[in-house]
Amino acid sequence: MQIDLLNKRLSEPEFLLKKNWVISNVEFKLKMIDLELSTKHKRTIMQKVEHRMKKPESIARKLIKKGYKPTFENSITKLNDIVGIRIVCLYSDDVYKIAELLRQQEDFILVKEKDYIKNPKKSGYQSLHLIMDIPLTYKEIKEPQRVEIQIRTVAMDFWAGVDNQICYKKSPREMKKAEEELKNYSDVISKIDQQMMELRKKVEKM
Amino acid sequence: MQIDLLNKRLSEPEFLLKKNWVISNVEFKLKMIDLELSTKHKRTIMQKVEHRMKKPESIARKLIKKGYKPTFENSITKLNDIVGIRIVCLYSDDVYKIAELLRQQEDFILVKEKDYIKNPKKSGYQSLHLIMDIPLTYKEIKEPQRVEIQIRTVAMDFWAGVDNQICYKKSPREMKKAEEELKNYSDVISKIDQQMMELRKKVEKM
Amino acid sequence: MQIDLLNKRLSEPEFLLKKNWVISNVEFKLKMIDLELSTKHKRTIMQKVEHRMKKPESIARKLIKKGYKPTFENSITKLNDIVGIRIVCLYSDDVYKIAELLRQQEDFILVKEKDYIKNPKKSGYQSLHLIMDIPLTYKEIKEPQRVEIQIRTVAMDFWAGVDNQICYKKSPREMKKAEEELKNYSDVISKIDQQMMELRKKVEKM
Amino acid sequence: MQIDLLNKRLSEPEFLLKKNWVISNVEFKLKMIDLELSTKHKRTIMQKVEHRMKKPESIARKLIKKGYKPTFENSITKLNDIVGIRIVCLYSDDVYKIAELLRQQEDFILVKEKDYIKNPKKSGYQSLHLIMDIPLTYKEIKEPQRVEIQIRTVAMDFWAGVDNQICYKKSPREMKKAEEELKNYSDVISKIDQQMMELRKKVEKM
Repeated sequence: MQIDLLNKRLSEPEFLLKKNWVISNVEFKLKMIDLELSTKHKRTIMQKVEHRMKKPESIARKLIKKGYKPTFENSITKLNDIVGIRIVCLYSDDVYKIAELLRQQEDFILVKEKDYIKNPKKSGYQSLHLIMDIPLTYKEIKEPQRVEIQIRTVAMDFWAGVDNQICYKKSPREMKKAEEELKNYSDVISKIDQQMMELRKKVEKM
Repeated sequence: MQIDLLNKRLSEPEFLLKKNWVISNVEFKLKMIDLELSTKHKRTIMQKVEHRMKKPESIARKLIKKGYKPTFENSITKLNDIVGIRIVCLYSDDVYKIAELLRQQEDFILVKEKDYIKNPKKSGYQSLHLIMDIPLTYKEIKEPQRVEIQIRTVAMDFWAGVDNQICYKKSPREMKKAEEELKNYSDVISKIDQQMMELRKKVEKM
Repeated sequence: MQIDLLNKRLSEPEFLLKKNWVISNVEFKLKMIDLELSTKHKRTIMQKVEHRMKKPESIARKLIKKGYKPTFENSITKLNDIVGIRIVCLYSDDVYKIAELLRQQEDFILVKEKDYIKNPKKSGYQSLHLIMDIPLTYKEIKEPQRVEIQIRTVAMDFWAGVDNQICYKKSPREMKKAEEELKNYSDVISKIDQQMMELRKKVEKM
Repeated sequence: MQIDLLNKRLSEPEFLLKKNWVISNVEFKLKMIDLELSTKHKRTIMQKVEHRMKKPESIARKLIKKGYKPTFENSITKLNDIVGIRIVCLYSDDVYKIAELLRQQEDFILVKEKDYIKNPKKSGYQSLHLIMDIPLTYKEIKEPQRVEIQIRTVAMDFWAGVDNQICYKKSPREMKKAEEELKNYSDVISKIDQQMMELRKKVEKM
């Protein structure tokens, strides 16, 4: 019943309007950043920008897993990734250039930053995560909207895609070996990223 | 040559990105306002929300007509309607309800208001115009974006549509009689608006 | 339970994909028609093109009202207006020009035509309705998709908007007088449509 | 002057409408195919679907390079890739599953197929290309629209992205070494694709 109420509130037009507003505002800033960087460096920077809204069922599941009741209030105050935006670029140094310009946006508040590129997760997962608050005003009410921005290379995104498909399907015990193999590929992928970036830098100096 | 330069600057990606941002932000507020009013009054409020960007040729023509040089700077500082947003609703009292909620948006600055419903133009044109500044921030730079918001009833919008088609085609002398006839229809249309609104109010009291 | 099943089937991705395909295909033809007519007559033809998908609840309600079981199969075979597309134009002669070009589309099958402009409904409702079958092919399967296309003037659309708001709210008895009043406005609106069209024709001959 | 005329014709509303129609129709089929495959295999199939329209300048350049005059007629009859659609998926066996279902569409005509995965280009470029004709009808006129559909894995797409940035910038002589290095990476990437696919198959059998 608590979950039915949560579902209902998460489907209300006002809630959806606000979340779509956040997405279109962050995507505007990303287009400006992409324009600034691609003009400066004379090459494409962002390969793909995607967004997703977490589904009510996933919100409930994540709240319960974290030890909270699955209420609308908790989903707003306890979760950072109801709105997720992902930027995929070719080279790992571009990841940090994009993050730097996001941090310079005076109206966006940086809440937290997690660098899973320098310190990959145990699974091998790599990405840079920025948790930000985006200011929304309606009438005299200010209501910052939280968003999780993930920045990664194409190679990291490829790894995450395979990991996603392979690891959520099987029992933990069966998965052990597949996970280890995937972890090794995570290292291979880091190396390719490194080499591609060096190749680009070599060519830039020609 | 000045016009070629104007064209070029008005087609730059950064300029277009900013103008599209304004449109999506005003449209977000309008959807919130529509939701608030339609929830409160238990009926549809907005019949149509449209936007348009003035074409470079129209911008140049309007600047010259007003006695300014057709430069990018003048188009930003001298014109209010490069971005235009139009809201069409069924009843004339709704026009003022929408305007009131737009004025209450703390982050939108009301620059000017022209009530062509209380005081129609000589041609018979009726609408409520709000000129507003919408705050855009990129990095540490704040750059308010001007927009003209037109609010009118379906009947006023119908009249304006006919006026638009009929009056921009012919020589001024030939048009004299057609214009007079159109002006009369403007009065007819005001009367219908009045009667439809009264009918609605009668039904609401049942 | 039958209704739960209907809801489920009407929300399936495949069903929604097909219906969205129909909408985008009819809208493509309408844009081509609008282009052909506006080029020929040197004025705007279509003021507004809208689409809507009937909600599962309305589908169930309409099937039951018509004496059918609320099943997915019945909703496909017994209803013509699950997908509705509405074209609004300024003048009533344009309504027939648009219909004529729709009938000329070799790949669209005209199933039925109802002229509620020549013969308004008892309520006063005016519009031209074309029921058409649009050919959809996936692999070797051909599956025509039914759609209801409504064509009307701005004035008829205005009347329908007021009718819609006023008449679905009250008990039948209370509504009697409001309905009669609305019916009178339907005649007023026909007259205005007639006069506006004549004014346009007069100007065109100047 | 010939190029000015080409530009003008390639910007005409009718031309753009038709090309956008093709894109939305192919994307509809791809969504149906994605749905069929992901339902059957219980995993995500397409990671990204993109489209692009070739710019007038690129069309003129390509025509001249191929020894044709840069006319509108030549751009329609001599070029296959004015409209390009790209599908990116995780595994190379999925590339062929998607192609197979595209070939099964009775209303799409397969004009030509080039398998640059089995036989990579000299540069190292890998992708499967299908050239198809999509049937467009307006009134009684049938006018098939040509489109180039590229299907590739994320890894191949990554390689192509780097190749694109690196190789169009420098003089041919300077590029020699960078190209050789890139060609080696093409092999590395084939190997990763192979290994990732085998890992998936192993997990599927668990």
